[in-house]
Amino acid sequence: MSQNFRWTAANRYSNLKPSALDGLLAVAADPEIISLAGGMPPPDLLPIEIIRDATKRVFQAHDTRAFQYGSVNGVQALREYIAEFYAPPGLSISAENVLITSGSQQGLDLVSRLLCDPGDVLLTESPTYLGAIQAFQLNQVELQNVPSDLGGAQVNALIKGLHGQRVRGAYLIPNFQNPSGAKMPVSRRIEIADYVNASPDQFIIEDDPYGDLGFVDEATESIASHAPDRTVYLGSFSKRLAPGLRVGWVAADIHLIDMLSNLKQGVDLHTSTFTQYVVLEALKDSRLPGLMNDARKVYSERYQVAVNILERELGELATWTLPSGGMFIWVTINADVDTEALLPELVKAKGVAYVPGSAFYPNGGGKRSFRLNFSANTTEVLEDGVTRLCRFFRTHISA
Amino acid sequence: MSQNFRWTAANRYSNLKPSALDGLLAVAADPEIISLAGGMPPPDLLPIEIIRDATKRVFQAHDTRAFQYGSVNGVQALREYIAEFYAPPGLSISAENVLITSGSQQGLDLVSRLLCDPGDVLLTESPTYLGAIQAFQLNQVELQNVPSDLGGAQVNALIKGLHGQRVRGAYLIPNFQNPSGAKMPVSRRIEIADYVNASPDQFIIEDDPYGDLGFVDEATESIASHAPDRTVYLGSFSKRLAPGLRVGWVAADIHLIDMLSNLKQGVDLHTSTFTQYVVLEALKDSRLPGLMNDARKVYSERYQVAVNILERELGELATWTLPSGGMFIWVTINADVDTEALLPELVKAKGVAYVPGSAFYPNGGGKRSFRLNFSANTTEVLEDGVTRLCRFFRTHISA
Repeated sequence: MSQNFRWTAANRYSNLKPSALDGLLAVAADPEIISLAGGMPPPDLLPIEIIRDATKRVFQAHDTRAFQYGSVNGVQALREYIAEFYAPPGLSISAENVLITSGSQQGLDLVSRLLCDPGDVLLTESPTYLGAIQAFQLNQVELQNVPSDLGGAQVNALIKGLHGQRVRGAYLIPNFQNPSGAKMPVSRRIEIADYVNASPDQFIIEDDPYGDLGFVDEATESIASHAPDRTVYLGSFSKRLAPGLRVGWVAADIHLIDMLSNLKQGVDLHTSTFTQYVVLEALKDSRLPGLMNDARKVYSERYQVAVNILERELGELATWTLPSGGMFIWVTINADVDTEALLPELVKAKGVAYVPGSAFYPNGGGKRSFRLNFSANTTEVLEDGVTRLCRFFRTHISA
Repeated sequence: MSQNFRWTAANRYSNLKPSALDGLLAVAADPEIISLAGGMPPPDLLPIEIIRDATKRVFQAHDTRAFQYGSVNGVQALREYIAEFYAPPGLSISAENVLITSGSQQGLDLVSRLLCDPGDVLLTESPTYLGAIQAFQLNQVELQNVPSDLGGAQVNALIKGLHGQRVRGAYLIPNFQNPSGAKMPVSRRIEIADYVNASPDQFIIEDDPYGDLGFVDEATESIASHAPDRTVYLGSFSKRLAPGLRVGWVAADIHLIDMLSNLKQGVDLHTSTFTQYVVLEALKDSRLPGLMNDARKVYSERYQVAVNILERELGELATWTLPSGGMFIWVTINADVDTEALLPELVKAKGVAYVPGSAFYPNGGGKRSFRLNFSANTTEVLEDGVTRLCRFFRTHISA
């Protein structure tokens, strides 16, 4: 086809640009580069055996159902399983509260598309997940950063923000936040829940892909458990099983699930019945909890390795978060640098990549920061990569 | 969770309702009912063996890549395979012209979301696919029916319609249209292509899920082949392989593919890498063409069975289309009936279901018509179902 014709894009998407995500997935795929960018499980910790055996059982047991059209809400047995074993911590839900989505990214799109009109405002932590920024901005939702610390969004600032014009609610990642690793204390969760419970029409989007990845295995009460009518809880199997399956879910009030289902039907009919059955069978595998424990242990060790190198190599030259779980450390250089502008140089000179901090700020910011993933590489490669990265900045700052 | 809180839905979706699709998928799943409603392949013609062997090869060959995050455009090898073997008939394309989607339903959403502003107009055949109506209406696109016949949309009326205010283009299903089975002659395709080629900013969405399902195996030049810069071609593996995999694609101008990719990234990151690899391996199976030939033969026989019964039982009481492929016959009763109102009675009295004609008209119409699927049931069950259906109407009309 010719490349000469310029499609007349619609006004609302006239500024549509690729996000940093695609570039970083491309960098992550280059075997020559040590990518500290992506938020992936390490290849050797993917439960391939479990998924393979699950797939075999799908072919044996479910016959043709796994290959035909299915219900828009998802495979009923999977919805039931999620309601029983993966409910928002501290909350009891039923299958009718669950909508299966094509990854939790789809949940972000569906929820903001349904509940926000163009020009409405959502509050976010500062910094916040770049994929959420992208989904919300596609729906012409305006984003406002709330000052945040190692306990996530600061509650007073959040509540003050909720009083703003056209503010529909807040998007929060209370467990091992992406990109900061912050974990929100229960007291803050309760304060936020109390506030929205009393508000006439505001809600919380509680995104929880990392809740299982605490270095110590203990679940923390969800915001949803304190404000079940006002919280849209997003769950994911990308970190529990495998990102490539693209199966996530939304847990929420039954009426909202019904509305989201009506929207989802027009958007993609339903998530693959095949992958849903594979996920269901994999979740039932008795080896899975052991594998999750292994992953937590490995992540915790790698985190310690990364932090030790940061301390040794950068010391006073930078500050960084000290998360108790998840996959990410947020590093801020104590000098006037632009991590986005420096990235190509870092890739070229040192063969290492991170995600520049600016990608996590919808309205600008984060120029001196970057997100460092400690889960995806082997400990040896991680050690090498973080060391190279630190020395790059040491040289750069002293130059 | 309590059911008492009423979510304040956004204005643009305040009238969001479930489409007929979900109800008919539910009816289709009831083993007590003979469903002539859904557009599914029959269970015994699903290539389960081929998919099973393909899955085995994915576990053997692709290792962990099939389970990690992937590129938003899709697995490169699958894009290449589609460009080589599934290009719009008569057109030569490259992998860069292909975007993998989560079923072609997602293509309908992405394309209308990107290329139409709220209030823009798309022309459609009359009747037209109910899933497309739903996707377009979610994006606040207004739909206008174009008078159609056994050759699809009438060209003069279509071109007259394209002169209307805010008309962005037309949505057409040229091969074995859903629901009418109409096939558009090449001369019409060329006339339409010539018109949009000369228009400053209009385009055609060419939806082609049934192109392979001609009773006689011969491909017809696509509209895309005559207007490659102005046609967005939607392809699907739901009928070639299995609907439950939810893998489809868009073939279009490279610049449009880039813009659609940027949108898709925010919507669901990418389609499941696992199912994409399974599809790729299944397509390479040398048994697949033979299976498609079997399917065509079976569909053709069943079509003939259905038409014979319509002739014998309804004769002058109804008219129906005589498609040369696909899965559907469009039946219109020659009496003042309301097929939507009658459906529950038919299900109850005769245990048979169809899709009422009104579901295929965005602005009202089709009250005396219904869509009859002849592919999904065995010949015996089909015979029984169509006979019961016809006798129901015979009794009803004479009553």
